[in-house]
Amino acid sequence: MGSTEKNKALEAVAVFLCERADEILKANDEDIKNAEQAGMSLSLIDRLRLSKERLEAMAEGIRQVAALQDPVGEVISMTTRPNGLIIGKKRVPIGVIGIIYESRPNVTADAFALCFKSGNAVILRGGSDAIHSNIAIVKVIKEALKSVEIEDNCIQLVTDTNRETAKQMMRLNDYIDVLIPRGGAGLIRSVVENSTVPVIETGTGNCHIYIDETADLDMAVNIVFNAKTQRTGVCNACESLVVHRSVEEAFLQKLCEKLKEKPVTLYGDEAARLAQSSVLPATEEDWGKEYLDYKLSVKTVDSIEEAISHINHYNTGHSEAIITQSYAHSQKFLNEVDAAAVYVNASTRFTDGFEFGFGAEIGISTQKLHARGPMGLKELTSTKYIIYGNGQVRP
Amino acid sequence: MGSTEKNKALEAVAVFLCERADEILKANDEDIKNAEQAGMSLSLIDRLRLSKERLEAMAEGIRQVAALQDPVGEVISMTTRPNGLIIGKKRVPIGVIGIIYESRPNVTADAFALCFKSGNAVILRGGSDAIHSNIAIVKVIKEALKSVEIEDNCIQLVTDTNRETAKQMMRLNDYIDVLIPRGGAGLIRSVVENSTVPVIETGTGNCHIYIDETADLDMAVNIVFNAKTQRTGVCNACESLVVHRSVEEAFLQKLCEKLKEKPVTLYGDEAARLAQSSVLPATEEDWGKEYLDYKLSVKTVDSIEEAISHINHYNTGHSEAIITQSYAHSQKFLNEVDAAAVYVNASTRFTDGFEFGFGAEIGISTQKLHARGPMGLKELTSTKYIIYGNGQVRP
Repeated sequence: MGSTEKNKALEAVAVFLCERADEILKANDEDIKNAEQAGMSLSLIDRLRLSKERLEAMAEGIRQVAALQDPVGEVISMTTRPNGLIIGKKRVPIGVIGIIYESRPNVTADAFALCFKSGNAVILRGGSDAIHSNIAIVKVIKEALKSVEIEDNCIQLVTDTNRETAKQMMRLNDYIDVLIPRGGAGLIRSVVENSTVPVIETGTGNCHIYIDETADLDMAVNIVFNAKTQRTGVCNACESLVVHRSVEEAFLQKLCEKLKEKPVTLYGDEAARLAQSSVLPATEEDWGKEYLDYKLSVKTVDSIEEAISHINHYNTGHSEAIITQSYAHSQKFLNEVDAAAVYVNASTRFTDGFEFGFGAEIGISTQKLHARGPMGLKELTSTKYIIYGNGQVRP
Repeated sequence: MGSTEKNKALEAVAVFLCERADEILKANDEDIKNAEQAGMSLSLIDRLRLSKERLEAMAEGIRQVAALQDPVGEVISMTTRPNGLIIGKKRVPIGVIGIIYESRPNVTADAFALCFKSGNAVILRGGSDAIHSNIAIVKVIKEALKSVEIEDNCIQLVTDTNRETAKQMMRLNDYIDVLIPRGGAGLIRSVVENSTVPVIETGTGNCHIYIDETADLDMAVNIVFNAKTQRTGVCNACESLVVHRSVEEAFLQKLCEKLKEKPVTLYGDEAARLAQSSVLPATEEDWGKEYLDYKLSVKTVDSIEEAISHINHYNTGHSEAIITQSYAHSQKFLNEVDAAAVYVNASTRFTDGFEFGFGAEIGISTQKLHARGPMGLKELTSTKYIIYGNGQVRP
């Protein structure tokens, strides 16, 4: 299927999602009612809830994917061997992508659009809380595809949402090329532990910012404030500070001044608490925690080596930053910290497909195979070697 | 560790393997004796056997890896975003690579050299038949590393070779970044089915050659003869022919004439047997078989569409070729056949890291994630984003 045809189909899906809003919202109402009866928390109900505006935003997201360059068919390299064989490496779809996610119905349309544009079929397995919404959205997408005469089997929804069907999906090596879990740490761990289908691990981020002894402290405060409070429930938010002892008192004083704007609680070691009395005691558990909340741990170190070793021990391989004016320290940090994205003098919140210029994102990989960091359309492709000969045989 | 240091260490390993040949050969003798007592087949014993010449070849292989360009540190791309952030994508080692293999002691040195040059630690788990050889080789490698003051923990051998230790390895997600099985179909299937650590599937090849109605039949015979007989026990050997009905009689006659030079048995469908009486009847099983022997199946088709659909149904995603003089058919075949390497008018035997110009090979990936086709040093690396800022925060 060419890009023109794919984009026409995505436009049809965007139109249908808005035109058929009533039908989708009615199904969503049912999910919301069930959630309320089950006593779901207000913030989770908010994630689950759709509205005309949210459906329009979903449609807009799909149009943005349509506008992106199609990665399929790009020939990344082509060389001629001494025997005359011409060997090209071409981007092709991966095949069938399975997405296992929680109760955010917007993921249904999002994931479909990215997989479809990159030429893949998608099998969606959302959470039981969103099942009525998901059924309605997938029905509308399928009808949109049919309206432009495209095979609607390229999107499949697993409607039986008990745990067994998810586990079965994780063993369908002959039918699914890759599984991408999207959701909290528990969901991701369960997929990684149970799946024999290749998995791309996404998500959890215990992101650190190290305040070097040479840091510009105003810049440090500004970046930490942004990375902690601009949004707290996201994987690229800062969860842990590592501070050089020689600047700790001055830095924490400036930081706490700034933090009066937002209700952030700091959990620190003894030195941090001596430097700033409002800091609560940290336990071992705090160093490894992804709070996803207005909380921040503070670890005191005596050197950049100690900072790097603390970070490499407790991080989740997501995003780590150093605030420094030292050339040598910036290079050392970039080289030695083991994470998908390592920053000098910038907020960890930039780890994101849109911010990186990919135009879209299916997730942020925290593993090292296939893709690491924000994954856009290119990361949803594989390659194949195409070889042009004229009778060559191997001697 | 810089390339200079790595290359010095590899040279030391090459020297030690030759100088300490007696010690390694003595250990190998023990494995050979045990194998003979256990009634191992002569061809397997030959795979297991080392000699001074084979150790020299191993050393030469290690020197070749030292001569290759170091992939680590290459910055693949670097862009400046509108907000001034400079985002680079840099090649880094994957981390810890686990290799599970059978009784070829040369894999021990090979796999070490490739993983070491690409900056990775390696955990080797070879077959029990080669355990004495492997212990001796790893001991010599470790001592060579120590002689140039390099931490010898970067190579580890699992000396307990019962099945349980292999299964345990497949679950060490916190310690092993990727598992690469090297060996027969049974070994690979077992690793794929049992591992929760990411796996790169390598190896099995049911490779087809399709003789199009427009093929140059002399070229076709020459290529098929090469792909079937140049070496039979390898994954890129041709196992299955697909022949257009209109040229089948003429082609098979030429082929059988040529095949008088080698004892190849053909297994074909009814049309193939009518075209050439020496063809034995094929069963359904033959279409999916990797013979690794002087055997070849012959399927008759009426069109290129039927050929492609047969190949996509029975192939293992390794290497497939078309022999054709038609531009349209060559393009169709390259586009629609789903495999790591797709050839026009050349032998499938070229799917190989050396033949592709990578200088070395850790295996041939038949899966679509991370790497597909021959894997050289680059395929043993991951990437990390390095981001240079000057105080940027996310709006």
